Amino acid sequence: MKSTRPVIGIIGAGQLARMMIQAAIPLNIDVRILAKNPNDSAALIAPSVEIGDPSDEKAIVSFGEKCDFITLDHELVSLAGLESLLASKVSVQPTPKTLRFAQDKLYQRKSFQAAGFPVPSFKKIQILNDFVEFGDLHDWPIAVKAITGGYDGRGVWIIDNLEAAEKLLTETQGADIGLYVEEHVKIEKELAVLVARRPSGQLLTYPVIETRQEEGICHEAIAPAQISNSIAQRAKKIGIDVAEFTEAGGIVAIELFLKSDGDILINEIATRPHNSGHFTIDGTITSQFENHLRGVMDWPLGSTTMTSKFALMINILGTSEVDPSNQLPLNHTTDTAIHLYGKIARAGRKLGHITAVGENVEAAYRSAQELMRHLQ
Amino acid sequence: MKSTRPVIGIIGAGQLARMMIQAAIPLNIDVRILAKNPNDSAALIAPSVEIGDPSDEKAIVSFGEKCDFITLDHELVSLAGLESLLASKVSVQPTPKTLRFAQDKLYQRKSFQAAGFPVPSFKKIQILNDFVEFGDLHDWPIAVKAITGGYDGRGVWIIDNLEAAEKLLTETQGADIGLYVEEHVKIEKELAVLVARRPSGQLLTYPVIETRQEEGICHEAIAPAQISNSIAQRAKKIGIDVAEFTEAGGIVAIELFLKSDGDILINEIATRPHNSGHFTIDGTITSQFENHLRGVMDWPLGSTTMTSKFALMINILGTSEVDPSNQLPLNHTTDTAIHLYGKIARAGRKLGHITAVGENVEAAYRSAQELMRHLQ
Repeated sequence: MKSTRPVIGIIGAGQLARMMIQAAIPLNIDVRILAKNPNDSAALIAPSVEIGDPSDEKAIVSFGEKCDFITLDHELVSLAGLESLLASKVSVQPTPKTLRFAQDKLYQRKSFQAAGFPVPSFKKIQILNDFVEFGDLHDWPIAVKAITGGYDGRGVWIIDNLEAAEKLLTETQGADIGLYVEEHVKIEKELAVLVARRPSGQLLTYPVIETRQEEGICHEAIAPAQISNSIAQRAKKIGIDVAEFTEAGGIVAIELFLKSDGDILINEIATRPHNSGHFTIDGTITSQFENHLRGVMDWPLGSTTMTSKFALMINILGTSEVDPSNQLPLNHTTDTAIHLYGKIARAGRKLGHITAVGENVEAAYRSAQELMRHLQ
Repeated sequence: MKSTRPVIGIIGAGQLARMMIQAAIPLNIDVRILAKNPNDSAALIAPSVEIGDPSDEKAIVSFGEKCDFITLDHELVSLAGLESLLASKVSVQPTPKTLRFAQDKLYQRKSFQAAGFPVPSFKKIQILNDFVEFGDLHDWPIAVKAITGGYDGRGVWIIDNLEAAEKLLTETQGADIGLYVEEHVKIEKELAVLVARRPSGQLLTYPVIETRQEEGICHEAIAPAQISNSIAQRAKKIGIDVAEFTEAGGIVAIELFLKSDGDILINEIATRPHNSGHFTIDGTITSQFENHLRGVMDWPLGSTTMTSKFALMINILGTSEVDPSNQLPLNHTTDTAIHLYGKIARAGRKLGHITAVGENVEAAYRSAQELMRHLQ
């Protein structure tokens, strides 16, 4: 059934889709969800849910044909399904062309390098000798990455020696996982630039974000990043250039390594809203989720200006089978906003986040950490 | 079906319910809606909608029995239905006892006066001579109000002379509308104090808000109100005392008249989130909608601190049958947040609102007015 409101279908029903649905309410958008499971984070709160597998071409087509626009919660979707919807004149953002940069990390590295973007040294791995050759040129340890499918630290291995490399190669070849290797960059800080872009070209950047990861999982983000203005400008420039090069529609997140010598390298990109930008719900005039929807529909973008001097976001990560939402009544006593995703607790799983905004970053930290103590 | 998440049922499906649903997402609450019509503002975006008439006792009971908590979008609900749910151990906030202050304005005036709160002089109207007696004591014009059912300027008449009074009395008696009369207060400013209160007693006030009404309809609100600190303190004190006196659960909004001599009188109260507090979505750490839900569930309240120095809210009022949501793609070019309610345009109808936040109120005005020019 077509609606007089614009209809956006979101493929996948994680917390990103959930926060897109929240952002869609004030825009008067008719949002629909393709969820693998009725208990998925976004399915719990969606006004319209269809159950189907995002990696299933038929499920995507049957779902998407009823929508004006299609966008994604995550990258693990059927490209053939998206291509088929495009052929049926459904607007798909990110497009399969854009999405490929996020789905295929080796393709991303190769095309970014060819375009002159700063990326770490890398090499595709096919046989053990590829490790030997790369190890001869670069110091061990080296970073080995899955070409597709990795996220939140999965699909990344830091390898100290050839013996470990051989073991990993055997295991991944057995599981049909393609690998590439890259230099293990010594990082001063990890940064992220979020760019909102309309397919027709308008583009806005959010303030540069500083992230802190543990074992590949984002633990916290501070905006604006505590870096010099010239580094911030260079980071933003890379972000803007990547958004244009990849022809992003909606949000594209560019994760960066800042080295101690001031050099910036591209770590990876996501062609959707990103964990590092969750602070924008409480800390900017227009959240990344609203601007993603605006970009997907090619609407004028909302202001990315911060409403406070600083914002701090901390992820609520599962530590056990205890669901922190049960403890929610006990905790909200500080100047923080809390966002729960409705997910069953599992160790290391992202269950929600908190945001503290304010005039100074230390005060924001104190508020956030006081709340986290109650949650854990 | 009971859920492991707390289940809040909202009776009525206007924009207040819609914004409560938005606030419920990050709290991981299972929200359900009793809507008169499937196209009602909140029904369009609700994950769970039951169709029924809020003034129908049976509809309320059948809907409410499946919920842990019941709250209201508006006052025009069956009290018998709420009483029956209370008897079935469903938690209802506001309680029928609290709700009566908002439903029956003459009861509100009488009980507030008896409790020593500052209210305008008033008198119940039964026969024409009641107007004569009141007119002898106070200057004409006088304000005549419907005891129940009025909102957004409906149910209020400013009457210049006895002839007009007689005409109104005849009309309203024919329609079975009870009346009272009160002094027509010469107003310097209109203020509103929003108080969030837990049934168990915790209570927080938002900054005092200044509102501008036209023909009884709220056109804009500025926070904090441009008034002296001592007036703000007196206004807050009245708000807190009213919240405690009425035993509010969730948000109670106290509309106040500020007279040129500095006196403050209570205009009226609403025992739910209020139009004057819509700025809190974008301008405070915890919105009135989230704190309403927290109060309804007797959860600790979130911070009512503003995230910017000033916030300005302007209602988008229908001027014709043109739906401004159709123009949305063309307009969002300033530092403002837009909130649409999904309602069909009708002259004078509240279709949405915009919020501008910032360091100075003039800049906020300029941003908001630039956007409004595009919308109208």
